[in-house]
Formats: sequence, structure tokens, C-alpha cells
Amino acid sequence: CRRFSVICTAIEKEIPVSERPQTFLRESDGSTSSSSSSSVRARFETMIREAQDRVCQAIEAVDGGGRFKEDVWSRPGGGGGISRVLQDGTVWEKAGVNVSVVYGVMPPEAYRAAKAAASDLKPGPIPFFAAGISSVLHPKNPFAPTLHFNYRYFETDAPKDVPGAPRQWWFGGGTDLTPAYIVEEDVRHFHTIQKQACDKFDPTFYPRFKKWCDDYFYIQHRGERRGLGGIFFDDLNDYDQEMLLSFATECANSVVPAYIPIIEKRKDLPFSDRHKQWQQLRRGRYVEFNLVYDRGTTFGLKTGGRIESILVSLPLSARWEYDHKPEEGTEEWKLLDACINPKEWI
Amino acid sequence: CRRFSVICTAIEKEIPVSERPQTFLRESDGSTSSSSSSSVRARFETMIREAQDRVCQAIEAVDGGGRFKEDVWSRPGGGGGISRVLQDGTVWEKAGVNVSVVYGVMPPEAYRAAKAAASDLKPGPIPFFAAGISSVLHPKNPFAPTLHFNYRYFETDAPKDVPGAPRQWWFGGGTDLTPAYIVEEDVRHFHTIQKQACDKFDPTFYPRFKKWCDDYFYIQHRGERRGLGGIFFDDLNDYDQEMLLSFATECANSVVPAYIPIIEKRKDLPFSDRHKQWQQLRRGRYVEFNLVYDRGTTFGLKTGGRIESILVSLPLSARWEYDHKPEEGTEEWKLLDACINPKEWI
Repeated sequence: CRRFSVICTAIEKEIPVSERPQTFLRESDGSTSSSSSSSVRARFETMIREAQDRVCQAIEAVDGGGRFKEDVWSRPGGGGGISRVLQDGTVWEKAGVNVSVVYGVMPPEAYRAAKAAASDLKPGPIPFFAAGISSVLHPKNPFAPTLHFNYRYFETDAPKDVPGAPRQWWFGGGTDLTPAYIVEEDVRHFHTIQKQACDKFDPTFYPRFKKWCDDYFYIQHRGERRGLGGIFFDDLNDYDQEMLLSFATECANSVVPAYIPIIEKRKDLPFSDRHKQWQQLRRGRYVEFNLVYDRGTTFGLKTGGRIESILVSLPLSARWEYDHKPEEGTEEWKLLDACINPKEWI
Repeated sequence: CRRFSVICTAIEKEIPVSERPQTFLRESDGSTSSSSSSSVRARFETMIREAQDRVCQAIEAVDGGGRFKEDVWSRPGGGGGISRVLQDGTVWEKAGVNVSVVYGVMPPEAYRAAKAAASDLKPGPIPFFAAGISSVLHPKNPFAPTLHFNYRYFETDAPKDVPGAPRQWWFGGGTDLTPAYIVEEDVRHFHTIQKQACDKFDPTFYPRFKKWCDDYFYIQHRGERRGLGGIFFDDLNDYDQEMLLSFATECANSVVPAYIPIIEKRKDLPFSDRHKQWQQLRRGRYVEFNLVYDRGTTFGLKTGGRIESILVSLPLSARWEYDHKPEEGTEEWKLLDACINPKEWI
């Protein structure tokens, strides 16, 4: 989230807890009810926790052997999270699915409505609420793609000291696919599901968010994207709030149908050392993007978020060969070409 | 180099050339002579190129099988470099030794003497010269440590439009050791050689530069250093220029005696999968430091330096396990403890 990058306040230390609480919300946020009349905060938390359960169940079912290890943690001032990681499974090398709820305080410069509010008063630090689900799934088989998705909701309090300045909110998120090899039918299937989710809400969403995704996951120093994209959006608040909550829910619900059928088809394909090494090189690019550019990661590292949850996005293993260039026309070259020159898949 | 971080000017694209030129200096820098009366620029270039030859010869001799691949490149406006990489050798997984010479232009804010110069005139963009040798050597055997060293010289022109504003210069560099396992005798040997090089010039150098090294190679989000340190200094100009040139030369000459004897003793030690995995996890930390914190790397990535030369510092392979914690008292734990709490080795 672009606005996250200006929130410099360090977050207090998380504390491991032994059981999942029913909610990470503060009581004042209506944490006792989850009916449709309850706050967006509460309904968003319910949504991401249900999505976490659903995705983890689907992963374990396909993996067969691996089991998610769960870590639950909370912060004294409110908020917390559930990290689930499946490592060295049958199908996935590393699969992380995290939800988190953060109560923080942002400097007033980060509060955009401050200027708009007709007042000479400057607001003090503004409390904010952020909740999100974030996941990276790295399979073992080089023909089975990596998936990332993240959906988040952000809300500030209304500044107390500036009369009329409103509460602000926005949504962000996306789902994107990172294969080491292009299987056209898989990439088309994946993008088709993303488009269907978008089209239910606005015909402009898919083309806009597809391009946004290509732009966001750009590894500038390489001149290439980390993968074959999907959808990405941020700072979204110029639509009806209920509509955007439904849209984020639809996107999160689309993860399993967009991804799992691809894995089922590719998880047992035979492969050679060459395929594995190329996958490892592409995983190196994944590491480069996440550590150098990804806003969530760099923000988390700098503000004292839970390191193991933040870096669960990194692959189990990655590789850097000096000056590796795939030969023109090879399958490796085709993937790289599509990362350099993003394509329309549907 | 701290001052590098404020130099925002993108560098022009490098061009591969087929032969090493005698010098990368512009003719105006006295590129035709390398006697002791010639410019510091010229003598520093000679020094780093000799150091590159010497280190590469020593590496190839110990490796037995591997050979350095050389890439030479230059920039139309002056400057260039020689990248040498030995990949997948007998002893080293990846060994990179690069020299480079850069002519650039820095924004006047980065020129510290501007204020000091008694003048209301503000200088325009200021041409600078930078030359350095940079190397990372990653062995295969988990008991054979990784070595990094880097020595650099930086010089600005005197601003033409501010009478009396001087030419500025400074030296930076260091050599540091990153083992996966502590072999006390090796770490002591390494630090002893660093101290001997320092003590020839100033008794305060080793303690100051040892601490500077521990502070610099700090992975803030982990609360640990990437390795067991050595020496590091930057922005050094408050000593005699000839003395600092000799000091940098002495440090560069100390690389082979500080490192090669350790490798000869450890390169053939038997090891298990457990040792290899721990080495790979520590290499993950190396990647984290270099991509998130290292000034040379992040500066290079953002200004359009030669990517393959910059990222040759990354290991051939690295690993990230979720929430890996070595058991207290184990050899892995001892290494981690020394990275968290830097020790005095001599």
C-alpha cells in the first residue's frame, strides 16, 4: 500500500499466543458481532480468516503429505495475526498464508484528507486500522507456478482535533502468477478467473488492474517483471465501500479455482535438472523483487513487523548465476520474454 | 560510500569491449604514466588492477579446476571495468572479483565543501571520479568461510563556478569474513592480519574499523550481523592522502594472506546435509543484507550500474526456512550468537 510507506511509526512487539482468538479487533470495533450490519473492519477480518481457512484446506488436500504449522500472535494494544506455513510438503516447497490485523498511529502528513478539511488546525498523529491476508505458494515442480495473493483494508480514525475531517478508508490487493515455464492454457485459465471476478463489479477493473499488476511487479534493475501478472490495485476508495468489500471477497474466493486446477495438472510432470535450475534462478528474481521493491516487505522490515511472517514470502531456495542468458527460442527464453514484454493472455 | 547515496545521476550504459585497456582513465587524468609522481587516480587504478590479478591467481591456484571468466566494459564518457567470475569451481561455488572506474556527475548538495567555501555562489553539478575493487568469494564447503572485500577511492573536481572551493577526495573499504561455522583459530588469524595491516598506519585504526564493520554489516530486521566482521571504513579523508593510499594498498595486499590459508585448511573437510543447509540459510542472510542494506548494491541497482557485476556478490544458492532457530549450545547457535553479539577475536 502506497500510504503504508509514509507510516513511520514502529509497531510494538508481537507476543505469541497459544489459541486463535475469535477476533483480533478491539472491542470498540464491534468485535462481538459479525452480521452484515457490523463494521467493515469486523466483516473484513471475518472474510480474510475464512479465506485463510479455505486456501489452507485446499493446499493440504492437494499436497497430501504436508501440514500447515500455525503461529498465532497478538499485540498488547490490539491486533495480531495468524501465520500458517507448510514447508517441504509433497507438492509445495513452501506455502505461507497469513492474516494480520494492525492498530497503529500514522503521522498526520500521511492523512490525505487533512488538507481538504476546511480548517487551519493541523491534525496530530492519526490512529489507523489495517487488516489483510497475504500468501505466497511456491511449489516444487518447475512446471507448477508460484502464486501470490494479498487483500487488505485500511481505515483511519477521524482526526479528533480537526472538526469535519473524515474517517478515511481504502482497499488494496491482487493475485498474480509466477511460473518458471509458460503453459499457455494455465496462464489463460488464471487470467480468465481474475477477469471474471473483476467483471462482476466493473468492466474497467480487469484491464486496469491487469496493467497495474504488470507495472507493480517490475524489477527495475532487471527491466523485467517477476512473473506473468494477474491483477493488482491499491488505494481504492472511489467506489461504494460495500461494493469494494464484495469485490475483495470475490477476489479472495477466486484464489482456489484460479490456482488449484493448474497445480493438479502440473504437480507430477517429469522434469530435469535444467528445469529445476531455471526455476531456482527465477526464484532468485522473486527474492530480488520482494527485498528491493515490494512495499509490504520493505515497509514491514523497516517498521518492526513480525520478520518470519514477512519473509515467509521468500522461496525455500533460490539461485543466482552470473550473467545467465537463456538461448533465444528456448522455453526459458520465452518466459523471460513474457516477463520483459507483458502479454495479453485473454 | 555514504556520499554515493546522494548521487542520483544515472550512469550511462556500459559497452562490452573485447580487450582490457591499459587504463580506464581519461587522458586528462594522466593515464599514460603510472610512476609514483602520477595522480592518485592513476595509482589507485593500478593498485586495484594488480590486486585483482593477484587475488584471482591465488583463487585459481587453490581451486584447481575453476577458471575466471572475464568481462571488460567501458562507458563512452570515460571509465569502465573488469568483472571476473569463477563459477562452480572445485572449491568455490561463486567467486567474483571486479574493478571499476566511474566518471559521473553529482548534484551540488552532495558536495560538502560547497558551504565551507566563502561564497554566495552555489556550485552547479560537480564531476566526480570513483574507482574501486569489490569482491565476494563463496566457497562450497560449509566450513570454508565467505570473504568480501572492497576498496575504493572517490574524488570530485573543484567546482568551476565557486572560487576557492577545493577538490574533495576520500577513501573507503574493508575486508570481512562470513563463516557458517566458527573455527576460532581461523577467525583469530583473519582478524590478526587485519590488525597488522591497520597497525602499520595508526594504532586506532583496527579498533575503530573493527567496530565500524560490526555496525555496518548489521541486518536490522534480524538484529544480527551477516558474519564475523573484519574492518570497514568510509569517507576517510582526515589523514595524509599518500598515507591513506598506502593503507588501502596494504589492506588489499592482505586479502590473500588473511583468507587463502583458511580455505586451504577447510576446503576438504567432510560435512553433512545439516551443515550444508545451515550454510545455505546463512547465505540467505547474506542476500538479505546485500539487497536491503548494502549501500554499494542498492546504489548500483538504483543508478543503472552493470547489474551482473553488482549482483555477482549474491551466492550461487541460498535458502529461507520459516522460523528456523538453532538449538541452544549447537555449533549453529554459536555462530548466530556471535552474529548477534559481536566478539573481540584478538
